[in-house]
Amino acid sequence: MDLTIKDVRLTPILIADPPLLNTQGVHQPYTPRLIVEVVTADGVTGIGETYGDSKYLDLARPYAKKLPGRKVSDVNALFTLGDEVDVDRSRISDQVDVGGLRGVQTADKLRLSVVSAFEVACLDALGKTLGLPVHALLGGKVRDAVEYSAYLFYKWADHPEAVPHEKDDWGAAIDPAGIVEQARRFKERYGFTSFKLKGGVFPPDDEIAAVRALAEAFPGHPLRLDPNGAWSVETSLRVARELRDVLEYLEDPALGTSAMAEVAAGTDVPLATNMCVTTFAEIKEAFARDAVQVVLSDHHYWGGLRNTQHLAAICRTFGVGVSMHSNTHLGISLAAMTHVAATVPDLHHACDSHYPWQSEDVLTDRLTFTDGRITVPDTPGLGVDLDRDRLQHLHQRWLDDNGTYHDRDDESAMRVADPTWTTPTVPRW
Amino acid sequence: MDLTIKDVRLTPILIADPPLLNTQGVHQPYTPRLIVEVVTADGVTGIGETYGDSKYLDLARPYAKKLPGRKVSDVNALFTLGDEVDVDRSRISDQVDVGGLRGVQTADKLRLSVVSAFEVACLDALGKTLGLPVHALLGGKVRDAVEYSAYLFYKWADHPEAVPHEKDDWGAAIDPAGIVEQARRFKERYGFTSFKLKGGVFPPDDEIAAVRALAEAFPGHPLRLDPNGAWSVETSLRVARELRDVLEYLEDPALGTSAMAEVAAGTDVPLATNMCVTTFAEIKEAFARDAVQVVLSDHHYWGGLRNTQHLAAICRTFGVGVSMHSNTHLGISLAAMTHVAATVPDLHHACDSHYPWQSEDVLTDRLTFTDGRITVPDTPGLGVDLDRDRLQHLHQRWLDDNGTYHDRDDESAMRVADPTWTTPTVPRW
Repeated sequence: MDLTIKDVRLTPILIADPPLLNTQGVHQPYTPRLIVEVVTADGVTGIGETYGDSKYLDLARPYAKKLPGRKVSDVNALFTLGDEVDVDRSRISDQVDVGGLRGVQTADKLRLSVVSAFEVACLDALGKTLGLPVHALLGGKVRDAVEYSAYLFYKWADHPEAVPHEKDDWGAAIDPAGIVEQARRFKERYGFTSFKLKGGVFPPDDEIAAVRALAEAFPGHPLRLDPNGAWSVETSLRVARELRDVLEYLEDPALGTSAMAEVAAGTDVPLATNMCVTTFAEIKEAFARDAVQVVLSDHHYWGGLRNTQHLAAICRTFGVGVSMHSNTHLGISLAAMTHVAATVPDLHHACDSHYPWQSEDVLTDRLTFTDGRITVPDTPGLGVDLDRDRLQHLHQRWLDDNGTYHDRDDESAMRVADPTWTTPTVPRW
Repeated sequence: MDLTIKDVRLTPILIADPPLLNTQGVHQPYTPRLIVEVVTADGVTGIGETYGDSKYLDLARPYAKKLPGRKVSDVNALFTLGDEVDVDRSRISDQVDVGGLRGVQTADKLRLSVVSAFEVACLDALGKTLGLPVHALLGGKVRDAVEYSAYLFYKWADHPEAVPHEKDDWGAAIDPAGIVEQARRFKERYGFTSFKLKGGVFPPDDEIAAVRALAEAFPGHPLRLDPNGAWSVETSLRVARELRDVLEYLEDPALGTSAMAEVAAGTDVPLATNMCVTTFAEIKEAFARDAVQVVLSDHHYWGGLRNTQHLAAICRTFGVGVSMHSNTHLGISLAAMTHVAATVPDLHHACDSHYPWQSEDVLTDRLTFTDGRITVPDTPGLGVDLDRDRLQHLHQRWLDDNGTYHDRDDESAMRVADPTWTTPTVPRW
């Protein structure tokens, strides 16, 4: 058994994405992802996945060169190694990117988002070598299946772009009836019983009406609304008041710890976040001010699966709930999310996943939801296999792209439909 | 490869302990420990160690019966399984045991102290099966050696007990000259360069003089003083003032979060603890009040090696230092401490260990300190082997004991020398 890393492969790809609306704009027809492969001396390949925008690629490339000669079992050391790679400061700001969907942008967070893919790839290779599932490398699963929620979006029937692109079969959803219909299909196709609506798109009263319609159509089902920080404290409190009898939690109603703390102080609806607390550095103040009641971990931001376990332990210690955030991702990350979620003792909320929106993947067999759950794989590693033809096809698309879609830009995408569009100033309402 | 647990063996033992003084009394000639063995279907045996007092044994015995059929890779599930075993409430109190050396006593902490030995044994068996060191099962080491400090004690030359018992070759140390001489031997024998003095034994001025003498004899060496919460806030502040130029930290000067917070507010000498914060439940308040600056983890209290990593992540997140506490222990626990300490990124203080005081062990080869450090084992599992003859010998001593030493009782031991002795009321000074 030789766990030494002999080779690392980085494959940027573009995957089809439906025209999902959010407060910044709309998803482009294609979104970039980065697929990481780590190959050991024994010829075992581990795979990982992360954001594929060029600022991540610019960091992943020099980082990947440092790995050969190290062992796939040395995942703790991956993080100090990440500190050795310079981050182009012009790519980030230490402030919250106003209207940004991924929270604060710091050099450390960018590094963690990159290293996380290598950590997952190393754990996959280690598990495959040892004949153990990734969850066993994380101390073992405490549940056999992980529950996910339906991630509802206002959406158009098609992208406004004139260039050829993949179409989806979901149709438009721009009002309460459309959202309820979308939820019904989610429930029928995948068995989801928790529903999250991405808000911040229409005026709050419209979104309140959509959540009310969901509550009527699916009585007793956990509901969530996430306007990505688009609201003022006053608006947030009004929405919380009007929906308090049906909301499981309200996600990032307002932007920043101070605003979130103000909202939290004024309502008994729990506040969840994947914008206010997205790094370890943000925890202390947010928890001290009781600004959030549920942290939605994104293992990419937080630096992988072991850090996600640490985050869960921190939340447990401070009486804060934990669940999982999702951005557009493929099956590798869904498998990684499922393995780590299976090891977290008190996971009391269904995790988010964009996965049902992704018609394309790089796996030979896609993961499937049954009764809204994914069965935790017990096969070695992540339990998923790379389809090289599919990977090559999506990479070729990235190569053929003239740069239009190499960096996700929901604002530009919206401008195709509305040339006057700019990301609204927050609070928008 | 079959990771299923087929058999579990519990072996209570009595090990020789020198007459070390603390604020409660003096160590008895023998102290109880429990050795845990977990045997897999493949015939691989993993070993663990924890406190051996009868309240731990009473919990370990029914717990051990639940393990066969489970896998040694399922360490996360060991903790929920622990919750299924009833704790005899008469054995514990939810309050700090006044003058107690192990901090708050709760049912959860008692469970964790027991389960930790099984977690270590499972990780040892898993590592041996896979051919990986325990640190690799914890994400991999980030250093090749772990630094320990010399643990200085006021002590007598011999126990007052008339019954036959093992003698040590350290001689007495009851004044500054004796402590300096002890430190010199620690440095010569093991290469330690950090010194911790167990205080709370003599009036504070005597202990200040001892630390001053150490500072003169070993200029520039990190020094610590630990009176086990024996002082008032005023006394604590006075000692901190008088020793602030030489102390690395002051450990548990006063008892409880409120008193510690008061002391911390009045000095810039960092406060360390293994009494104020010994469970996850105590962290939130202590950190909010800035009561402690360094948490000394004892992997037995905290529930094993993975929980110790979580604790370290919590401390890192809240800007609190972390290092390791020690109670009387053998080489199995020292190996476990070394493996987990090797994985903690920011371990900025030498760890405590009683190990040099223990003349007996259950290992074929004892761990050795070089330049005050233990090299992190890279051999499979913990990297130590059980000596069955030694184990049997120490177990026979436990069997032959009429119950005198089955529960550690420093107060009773002191009464042998001084029939009027009772554990002093805290604060003692």
